[in-house]
Order: sequence, then structure tokens, then C-alpha cells
Amino acid sequence: MPHIHVVATGGTIDKVYALTGELEIGAPAADTLLSPILTDNTYDVTPALALDSLDMTDADRAALCAVIDGLPGRLVVVTHGTDTMPETAAFLDEHLAAADQTVVLTGAMRPAAMAPSDAAYNLGAAMTAVQLLPAGVHIAMSGRVFSAGKVAKDHARGIFVELS
Amino acid sequence: MPHIHVVATGGTIDKVYALTGELEIGAPAADTLLSPILTDNTYDVTPALALDSLDMTDADRAALCAVIDGLPGRLVVVTHGTDTMPETAAFLDEHLAAADQTVVLTGAMRPAAMAPSDAAYNLGAAMTAVQLLPAGVHIAMSGRVFSAGKVAKDHARGIFVELS
Amino acid sequence: MPHIHVVATGGTIDKVYALTGELEIGAPAADTLLSPILTDNTYDVTPALALDSLDMTDADRAALCAVIDGLPGRLVVVTHGTDTMPETAAFLDEHLAAADQTVVLTGAMRPAAMAPSDAAYNLGAAMTAVQLLPAGVHIAMSGRVFSAGKVAKDHARGIFVELS
Amino acid sequence: MPHIHVVATGGTIDKVYALTGELEIGAPAADTLLSPILTDNTYDVTPALALDSLDMTDADRAALCAVIDGLPGRLVVVTHGTDTMPETAAFLDEHLAAADQTVVLTGAMRPAAMAPSDAAYNLGAAMTAVQLLPAGVHIAMSGRVFSAGKVAKDHARGIFVELS
Repeated sequence: MPHIHVVATGGTIDKVYALTGELEIGAPAADTLLSPILTDNTYDVTPALALDSLDMTDADRAALCAVIDGLPGRLVVVTHGTDTMPETAAFLDEHLAAADQTVVLTGAMRPAAMAPSDAAYNLGAAMTAVQLLPAGVHIAMSGRVFSAGKVAKDHARGIFVELS
Repeated sequence: MPHIHVVATGGTIDKVYALTGELEIGAPAADTLLSPILTDNTYDVTPALALDSLDMTDADRAALCAVIDGLPGRLVVVTHGTDTMPETAAFLDEHLAAADQTVVLTGAMRPAAMAPSDAAYNLGAAMTAVQLLPAGVHIAMSGRVFSAGKVAKDHARGIFVELS
Repeated sequence: MPHIHVVATGGTIDKVYALTGELEIGAPAADTLLSPILTDNTYDVTPALALDSLDMTDADRAALCAVIDGLPGRLVVVTHGTDTMPETAAFLDEHLAAADQTVVLTGAMRPAAMAPSDAAYNLGAAMTAVQLLPAGVHIAMSGRVFSAGKVAKDHARGIFVELS
Repeated sequence: MPHIHVVATGGTIDKVYALTGELEIGAPAADTLLSPILTDNTYDVTPALALDSLDMTDADRAALCAVIDGLPGRLVVVTHGTDTMPETAAFLDEHLAAADQTVVLTGAMRPAAMAPSDAAYNLGAAMTAVQLLPAGVHIAMSGRVFSAGKVAKDHARGIFVELS
């Protein structure tokens, strides 16, 4: 059976509403989103970072890279803020040590804790794409699958688009 | 951009709670589930049948087959009850006229109208798988992708398993 | 601070979806519904019965009556199926031993586990009414408050109405 | 049958998540929250203001007062941010023209669009309290009912408390 490593880095998907009236990064939403899925697959969820992706630096990306390099398995889903997801995908594509891992980044335009949200749909997309795609770094967002380095976020529309 | 035909046949995913206290098949849940997904893809939702899949006959499956044969596009997701999803997949695999369509069946163990439900996750899985899989008939359930004819539902555990 | 006893008896409010595809009575929904309410009030939840209210007999109602008679506090909310809620209210009104308890029955037309549901709204109504109403047995449903013996359910419309 | 005027002023209860990643005041949540309630009561929802209550000035409160003064009915529920709800209640208590209106303010510690939220419960509490309380200005929050001028918000705990 497939084993999938899920690595959480924060972002909108993990945002929760605090008593202060502010949104803050909560525990990885992936845990909650995966709980209703009856499956023979196995998975683990690693909370690697807890950042708004606008605040993510290359030092953070190097730390994420080290976490992924250290995972024993070949299938990795990364939950990530949407604003700099393309940058992180490109960074991982360049710096990951292993050649045989399939890494799929996903996230959400609205927090998993809000209804409706695209979080569960996107995670289902990423957990499936990681099993079907070849080794390399990919993004599953906006109902599609993109390759690292060939994707950008259209911020005005909230939609990921392919770079030609 | 990909265009995906979604064909609804009823099943648990579409069940809603009626004033009588009974569950009944409502409008296709796919419409509601897809509404928060910002995307450049296009899709249409066809309500072909509205059945509990235990009540689905081969005449119903032939009608479904005719609906899919009549679709102009190559990418088709079918929402379906889980109990006889493997039988319908095998039927479609045998009877579909076109050789170039990719058809992915999915559904849910709990109605999309309940919280939590696996419906959004499963639909995200199927809408992604249909873009990545070769032509043929497949099932996206239980966090995995199966080929028609090589899958069964383990009813006691509510999990789809591969037939050897 | 007010202490409120919540007594659960089953009914639609507590229905959950089982793997078999059937609805069944789950754990008291009141526990889940009350968890997001920050309050200095205290409460306890007693699972007294787990019945569809159409199956509730006078023996069941006598058992419920004994549970309420045994509660040390004066404020009691009973969650109950809607179909025979007026009958149970009348029974409790006749048989409860203590003269100083305020008892408010409530429930839901759609399970708390479905979205949307009237469960949280109705429980908020009942938990408030029990603090404002005089001793006696009441029903908080359909956005209003009714006295035991002067209320019926209009089954066709799913609305509780006052008897003249 | 009771007719209840609902007046929305913004606040956490009405917050929605924008594409920018910021929370903003959306349409009155009361409309959505009331839609699953089958009832013979009637109500209308007036969007009077759309403010975070920390930004509410006495000029805003005077405008709200004029809106309520202009309502033909006797029963009024006001949805409001929690931070200055006690101040607005005191202001209305002092300035409302009519002596026979019952006004109940409520709101939520978490947006109605988040799950779980206290919004539906609190609105059920307020819509019930407004029918049971005497004329005057009240707050229904934290599972209880308070009189204008005798209530404060304990910001650290997110709980409304009675002033002695």
C-alpha cells in the first residue's frame, strides 16, 4: 500500500480564528481533512513550518528541503500558503537531494476551518496526484496539476496558471 | 484548458435529509462541491440518474453508458453510490463505444451534506485522476485509484480494495 | 451562575450516518454543539435514551421522568425527536414530581451532523428559554416557545404550532 | 405570529475570508443562519452598518438608533461585534425613542462562516430572548442574558460577565 508523507508549512489552509479576532496558523489542517477518509493507505503528517507563505524565506525553504530529504518514503505532499507556492516548488525542484521522490504542493484559497473551503478538494487532488505523477516537484491547485518552474499564481483572480 | 464532464447518478454522495426523516437523493452534490474551486478549467454537471446504487440495474447502466457515449469531451467523472460502483465500472469498461475517453467513478461513504464527509476530497481526487490517467474506466476511492475490473468494495470496512 | 442539565433522548438531532448507509442515533449532539460556546454557565449532558421519537413508549417517558426527577438542579433542557415531542412534553407536565423545575424540550428537523441544520439554533433557543421561563414544561422549536399541552407538530410543514 | 426585525451592524459574526487573505465584513450572516429554521414567525434583515465594533463611533450608534427607531415592530435583534457590544447596548438604552421595544444584541466569537462557530447558537438565543424579555435593551451572549448597563466583556476569556 502507498505511504504518503504530508509536510505542513502553514498558509491559508491552516488558518484559524483566534479570540483576538485575528487569523493565525493553527495545527496542520491535513490531520482533520484526512480523518474522514477510510483507506488502506498510510500517511504521517509532519508540522515543519507554521508560516504565512509571504513570510517564507529561502532559509525556511532550505529547512523544508532538509525535512523532505530526511523522509524515508518516495511520496510527499506539502501543504503551503498559496502566495509563494510557485517559488517554493522551484526551490525544492532545484535543491532536493533525492531524484526519486514525487513531491506535490497544495494549499487552499480559504481556510479549511471555513465553510465552504477548497481545502479538502485540493488535498484529495494532491494525495492522488502524488501517486500518479513521475518523480519531481509539482503543484496541485486550481483543479489542475502543474510542474515546478512552469506555474505562477494570478493573484487578482486567485488562480494558478501555466507559464509558457 | 481541460473540460471535464461530470455525470451524477445519485448514491450516498447526493443524499439529503427530508422532512419525513428519510434520506433521499438530492440534486448533484458535485455542483455545490465544485463551487468554491477557483479554476480556469471548465466543467458541466449532468444529472443522469438519481439512484441508490443497490437499486441500479443493467438497464440503468446501459442508460448511463448512452449518456457518456453522447458526451463530446474526452474527460468524464461519474459520481455514483459506493455499493455497486465496481460493477458499474466493469459494465462501462465493456460497453462504452469510444476508445479515447478517460472515465473516473467516485462517490462518498458519507453524504456531502454531512460534516465531516469524504465527498469533497474524493471529488478532488477524481477530477485530478481523470486528467492524469490514460483512456479507460477507473475508480478513485479510498485515497487510491483502481482500474475497472480489478477492484471490489470491502463492505464491512467501507474501503475499496484491489483484486489480484 | 446557572447550571443547566441537558438530557438527551435521541431523535433527529442525534442522527449520524453509518457505514451501512442507514441513519442511526449517535452520541448526544448537545456535547458537540455546546463546545464552541464560551460561557461561565455550567452544564452536564446525560444520555438517558437513544430513540427515534416515533418509537418512544410511555414506559420510555416514565424512565425519562425518573431521570429528570433525579436531577439536583432546577433548569433542564431535553433533546428529543420532533415527531412525538408534544406527547412527551404533556407526559412530563403530568408526571414530574418537582414543582419548581423548568423543563424545555427541543430537537431538530435535520441532524446536527448535517449542514445546514437547525440544531445549534434550536439548542441556543432552549438553553436561553430555560433561564427565562417559569417552572413547568415547555417546547422551544420553530423559532418560538410553547407550553406543554398547547402545542402540536404540523408534520406536513415540519413546524410546531400552538393549539387554541 | 411574532415578527422580528434583525438589524446587522457587522462584527465577527459577519466576517468572511477574502481572496487577499484578509477577513472582511460580508453580507449579514443572519440571513444564512435563519434559512434552515422552519417557522411561522416572520422576520426581516436590515444591513444597517458593516463595521468591526472596535471602529464603531457614537455617530454610528446614533445612526443605528435611528434605524431601530424607524422600525414598525416591537421585537428587534441586533447582530454586532463583541468588543463594544456593551457600549452600544448602553447607548441604545439611553437614546432609543420608543419605550415599548425589546432589543436584544448578539454576535459571535467566531465568524458564522467558520466551523465550529457560536453564531447559530447565539442567534437562536437572541431570537428567543427577544420574545420572552420585557421592553428594554439586552444582550444575549455567553449562554446568558444581560441587561444593558450591567454587562461587560472579559476580553481575555471572550466571555460576557454581569457587572455588580
